[in-house]
Order: sequence, then structure tokens, then C-alpha cells
Amino acid sequence: MSLLYEGKAKRIFSTDEDGVLRVEYKDEVTAGNGAKKDHIDGKGRLNNQITSIIFEYLKEHGIQSHFIEQTSETEQLVRSVEIIPLEVVVRNIAAGSITRRLDFDKGHEFETPLVEFFYKNDDLNDPLITDDHVKLLNIANEEEIAKLKKMALEINKALVEMLDSINLRLVDFKIEFGRTKDGDILLADEISPDTCRIWEKDSDTNFDKDVYREDRGSIIDTYQTFLNKLEELK
Amino acid sequence: MSLLYEGKAKRIFSTDEDGVLRVEYKDEVTAGNGAKKDHIDGKGRLNNQITSIIFEYLKEHGIQSHFIEQTSETEQLVRSVEIIPLEVVVRNIAAGSITRRLDFDKGHEFETPLVEFFYKNDDLNDPLITDDHVKLLNIANEEEIAKLKKMALEINKALVEMLDSINLRLVDFKIEFGRTKDGDILLADEISPDTCRIWEKDSDTNFDKDVYREDRGSIIDTYQTFLNKLEELK
Ligand SMILES: Nc1ncnc2c1ncn2[C@@H]1O[C@H](COP(=O)(O)OP(=O)(O)O)[C@@H](O)[C@H]1O
Ligand SMILES: Nc1ncnc2c1ncn2[C@@H]1O[C@H](COP(=O)(O)OP(=O)(O)O)[C@@H](O)[C@H]1O
Ligand SMILES: [Mg+2]
Ligand SMILES: [Mg+2]
Repeated sequence: MSLLYEGKAKRIFSTDEDGVLRVEYKDEVTAGNGAKKDHIDGKGRLNNQITSIIFEYLKEHGIQSHFIEQTSETEQLVRSVEIIPLEVVVRNIAAGSITRRLDFDKGHEFETPLVEFFYKNDDLNDPLITDDHVKLLNIANEEEIAKLKKMALEINKALVEMLDSINLRLVDFKIEFGRTKDGDILLADEISPDTCRIWEKDSDTNFDKDVYREDRGSIIDTYQTFLNKLEELK
Repeated sequence: MSLLYEGKAKRIFSTDEDGVLRVEYKDEVTAGNGAKKDHIDGKGRLNNQITSIIFEYLKEHGIQSHFIEQTSETEQLVRSVEIIPLEVVVRNIAAGSITRRLDFDKGHEFETPLVEFFYKNDDLNDPLITDDHVKLLNIANEEEIAKLKKMALEINKALVEMLDSINLRLVDFKIEFGRTKDGDILLADEISPDTCRIWEKDSDTNFDKDVYREDRGSIIDTYQTFLNKLEELK
């Protein structure tokens, strides 16, 4: 069981089983491509638990992912994929970079969800790219681009409904996809408060990494409250 | 004949004739969205002359533009259009922002020409935007986006051939389009060394604003040499 890759938030290990990886969620939190960085006890446990619940929920709603099962407080087994180097962002409400980039007011509701591709490349600071750039960089072909957008919107629809039922609004989120050995495209990585913006309806409370980005309180309390809400779903 | 608009490089005046504007090319040069700025005698004359020759050439090759006729050394008449706030960039060879943004080597030849849209908005620093952003910002609809890209590639093809015949390579260029009263989309603004990158074949010489951006010599000598070459075409 050797360490294959260590990222900012997770470690990826091989397993005895071919095509299966073990993901260990770390007690690390970063923001601004690693510019801000902290060790926070218990954060790995929360994101592992939350991602597991969300991937289970998606599966029950017809959306496959790399997720196999949670195996410990901080670990889960996933299908090995070749990650497509795109951060696929879906936005329902304007917040974060798009408010600066295109001057949308924070809180502006888009008429239809917006899908954006960012090139997953830390050295280049994950730049926004167009479909033509995706093709030019040989990241994905035309057909795959259409599939990624379709899947992203389906995932958005399922998550919006899930969160709506517990009085939360899904502002935006980032997902990653990978290719299986058969060439299928599968949702991978994580879906957690690190990768989403989640606002409580009719209040100023949010349950996501903006609490950390903006130094507005305890990330553990925030993520734990969100996890408690998700557990109401069961 | 009142001044309607003064930009960084041109002044736009109304005329007695409905739907016709007078453009006066200024002796001003700017780079980096106005961060670098100079008055250079004779620059307006050169860009007016060069743009006139290029728009005439395009017309002879089946590509309509707003250009009506050159009326003096520094002036031309054009059809009035409602400018679509996009800087449409076509790239044949990597240079400038794309070498930093996506780490292409300067001089890398793209297999097919790349079209990029930048939101023409000085306050936002003309950000790169995707087709979905163009629609979201109500800049153009799906059909118009396809038309803009098609026209941009046709213009590129004509310009590449034109420059090739005088031993020059068209690296990239920026164009603007506008809507006529009938809703037609027309090539507008200018095509000059201010808005193109033009390299001499088999040499390090270039005939464009990079000479100014990089403080590498006289912009007047550079643009005049380019104009002389264009006059060989006639
Ligand atoms: N199923 C999978 N197979 C292979 N790699 C994966 C899978 N799911 C996620 N990854 C990758 O694991 C790495 C570790 O995750 P993370 O710590 O979040 O990294 P990063 O610092 O790039 O955000 C990321 O590069 C992610 O793309
Ligand atoms: N045919 C036209 N009708 C109306 N406006 C035009 C036309 N052609 C160009 N323009 C606009 O004229 C303005 C002046 O040009 P310029 O000095 O290059 O401005 P800028 O500082 O925006 O680059 C620009 O906003 C340009 O879009
Ligand atoms: Mg990550
Ligand atoms: Mg201009």
C-alpha cells in the first residue's frame, strides 16, 4: 500500500486490489492555491465523512462516482482514474472569483447554472480556459467536453435538491472528473465544504471554506454543523 | 460634426450623413491597458493609412467592414455600428499573454488558428471570457457567437495570405465587430500594427506594437516599413 500522490488535502495510496485506491483525508486546509495554509485537527475526518455521504446520495440519484466505500474516519476506497486536469466549476449564485472577474454582485442569482473550466495547473494558478483551449491542450475532445458539462449540470441539479431539503443553498462548487481504464468519464476527487459554497437560506450563515478564507470562525464547528445537517437526510 | 467618443487611439465624430462616422487616428500609443502611454508624431497617419489598405484588401476578398473611405492623412469615414464589447483575438502562433497564461513557448505554431474572446471592459482589464460568459453577459447569442468565430477565421485566412505574399507571418490580431441598424454583424474598428503581431519570415524582425511595448526601437520607422511593404501589394 504505497503512497502514490500527496496533494494539499488528501493522500492517495495503492491497494492490493487492482484499480482501487485508498484516499486519506488530511488535517490540512489551504486557500488561494496554498498561499494560506493551516493544520486543523479533525478536518480530515469531517471532509471524508461529508464526501462519503454526498457521493452515496449521488449514487442513489443515478450519478456514479469513483467512490466505493468509507473504511475509517479519515479514509475511503475509490476507483482509480486518470484525472482530467480540469477544475469544473458550476455556479448558481455569484460569489468568489466571478464577482471580481466579471463584476457580478455577490449573491446575484444566475438564470441558468454556469459551468466554467479551469486548467488544473498550480504553476499557472489554475487559469480559466475556454472549450477551444481544452481541445488545444489535448485535455478533452469535443464530445467529452459536452459530456463533462452535462454531467456537471446533472450533479448540480441533484445537489441543489439535496441541500434545498435541509434549508441550504448551493452557491457554487468545483468537481474533478477522471477516465477509467475503459475510457468512461467518472466523477472523482471530493465534494465537501472545501470545494463548495453553501449558504443557509434567509440568513448570513455559510457552511464552507469561506469561513477559513475570510477568518470568520472555526472551520471545525462550521463543517461539523454542516455534517449534522447532512445526517438529517438519512 | 461633434465628437462622439474619444478612445486611446482614435476620436469618433458624427457627420452630416446619417449612419456615417468620421474616425480620426491620434498620435497616441498606449500599452498594457494605458499603463504605458506616449505621444508620437506621425503615428495616427500610419495607422489610418495601414487600416485603410487592409480594409480595402479585405473588401476585394469578399469581407465587408465598416470602412467607407480614407478622407485625409489621419481620417477615414466608416459606417456607424453598435460595437459588440468583445476583443476577438485570433492566434496562429503563440506570443504575448497566451505564453504566460497557458505556458506556450513564444513562436509555437498552433495546428489550427485559435479564437479567443476578451470582454472589452477597461475597468475589468479586458478579461478572457468563455462562450457561456458571452451569453450570460448578454453580449451575443449562440448564433452570433458562431458567426463572430466564423468571420474571425475568414479574416485570418485572408490576412495570412496577404502577409505571406510579402514575406510576413501573421502571429495574432485583435478585431472588433459591431451591429448595423439592420442587426447585421460587421467588422469594425481598426486592423493595424497596434492590433496585430506581424513577424518577418526567417528573421527576428517584427512590425507591430511589441517594438513599443518592449522598448525596442522607433515605432514610426517600424510602422512606416510595414506600410511600405503593404504598398508593394498594390
Ligand atoms: N479516483 C482518483 N484516482 C486518481 N487520482 C485521484 C482520484 N480522485 C482524486 N484524485 C487526485 O488526488 C489528488 C489529491 O487530492 P488533493 O489533496 O485534493 O490534491 P490537490 O492539492 O491537487 O487539490 C488530486 O490530484 C486529485 O485530482
Ligand atoms: N464603426 C464604428 N462605430 C462606432 N464605434 C466604433 C466604430 N469603430 C470603432 N469604434 C469604437 O471607437 C472607439 C475608439 O477607438 P479606440 O481609440 O481604439 O478606443 P479604445 O481606447 O477603446 O481602444 C472604440 O470604442 C471602438 O470600439
Ligand atoms: Mg483538491
Ligand atoms: Mg482600440
